[in-house]
Amino acid sequence: MFLRTLKLTLAYDGTAYVGWQRQPTGASIQQVVEEALAPFMPGAPPPTVTGAGRTDAGVHATGQVASVRVGFDHPVDAVQRAINIRLPLDIRVRRVEVAVPSFHARIDARGKLYRYRLATAPVVLPMDRWFVWHVPEPLDREAMREAARALVGTHDFAAFQATGSSITDTRRTIRRIDLVQAGDELHVAIEGDGFLRHMVRIITGSLVDVGRGRHDPAWVAEALAGRDRQAAGRTAPAAGLVLERVDYGQAPDGR
Amino acid sequence: MFLRTLKLTLAYDGTAYVGWQRQPTGASIQQVVEEALAPFMPGAPPPTVTGAGRTDAGVHATGQVASVRVGFDHPVDAVQRAINIRLPLDIRVRRVEVAVPSFHARIDARGKLYRYRLATAPVVLPMDRWFVWHVPEPLDREAMREAARALVGTHDFAAFQATGSSITDTRRTIRRIDLVQAGDELHVAIEGDGFLRHMVRIITGSLVDVGRGRHDPAWVAEALAGRDRQAAGRTAPAAGLVLERVDYGQAPDGR
Repeated sequence: MFLRTLKLTLAYDGTAYVGWQRQPTGASIQQVVEEALAPFMPGAPPPTVTGAGRTDAGVHATGQVASVRVGFDHPVDAVQRAINIRLPLDIRVRRVEVAVPSFHARIDARGKLYRYRLATAPVVLPMDRWFVWHVPEPLDREAMREAARALVGTHDFAAFQATGSSITDTRRTIRRIDLVQAGDELHVAIEGDGFLRHMVRIITGSLVDVGRGRHDPAWVAEALAGRDRQAAGRTAPAAGLVLERVDYGQAPDGR
Repeated sequence: MFLRTLKLTLAYDGTAYVGWQRQPTGASIQQVVEEALAPFMPGAPPPTVTGAGRTDAGVHATGQVASVRVGFDHPVDAVQRAINIRLPLDIRVRRVEVAVPSFHARIDARGKLYRYRLATAPVVLPMDRWFVWHVPEPLDREAMREAARALVGTHDFAAFQATGSSITDTRRTIRRIDLVQAGDELHVAIEGDGFLRHMVRIITGSLVDVGRGRHDPAWVAEALAGRDRQAAGRTAPAAGLVLERVDYGQAPDGR
């Protein structure tokens, strides 16, 4: 029996998982969260938890959002505590809210913020080893910023999509790409209305290619215009990427 | 053949180890570092690597220091790279320096700085789960600061030593205990000339008991004066503790 739709805000260390989405090859975040919710609804089929972003294997989140239609109406704080007790420590529910019944975490999302952590020191601290991409070479930050500017705005990002994707509408809007120095790390923060498969990782890989001097900044604009995946840079490794925030046009309860 | 003494500065995630020191029960940091050095000296017995602090199982380091007498004189940068290639990613050598031949990382240490990370938010981020102690209750920071003041200085810390220790001289000097708010975390930074077994963890456990209101601040001074382990607080869990720095009176090359 459907009683209400919940909005879950999730954080996870994606290292041990095949990614957000259910896969036959191993445990996914989605599956583990669904299994943690199942005991709330004995006798009913396990609920489907829909994530705003289908993060890849090894990609992390501090602010993934998911929607789920449930047949119980316990207080949200009690639900949060009970799910967290059942979840492994590498997945945490940071917040549970009651949403409007029709709320859909992916379709309703208006924007997402991803952050890529580049570790530029010669040695990566062991505590950071699953959460950064180690790029110890000198990086020309000004060239990277210039290249990034060509990507901001609404464009056809076909060149920045994983090959083999079946998506046909490859136009997306990037609102900003910020390069932020954070101690020994260079962060690439990318905010947009939505992202194609591997898009954030291919953008970051291409910007690092420019930073290393393998290409000049104009090459990124040319790759974008060419709409050919072969023209863009490498796909950056999953480990440095984190989904930080998903934005919705209004509060989840419809206000 | 002895050629020189090296000073190694090490960082590690202690989660997977039985601690710094060799144990029959599992892999230690010391053993893994010694095995990474062994191929430099084929035919010779594996070198003994002496750490400044014998960190417990699950305790971490960003600035552990170790000394080792070696029979090779390769450039220190090449030594650092070669050791790091052989080490697992949860142990990194941050620096290699040539020390005076007599340098001994433990005996020559003049001071150490430990940091304890208390996570005070309701939910611990998955990325931090091995690196913090989760204390979501409200903590009275002023009471904790007042209790800490009684411990600064030179005292007999017998009450703050693990039971069963064979150490007879239990006088030590604590130079400072700082409580520092760092975002959602409260850090307890403890600097002293040396520490008894579990001393940092018992001090932190006692301060948290005061912060939670289980004891008033004067209780810590009474426990100190009583010199009885039963009078002090609990031993805080290993996971939140990191050895950040070891100080020596002079540069390792004797300058």
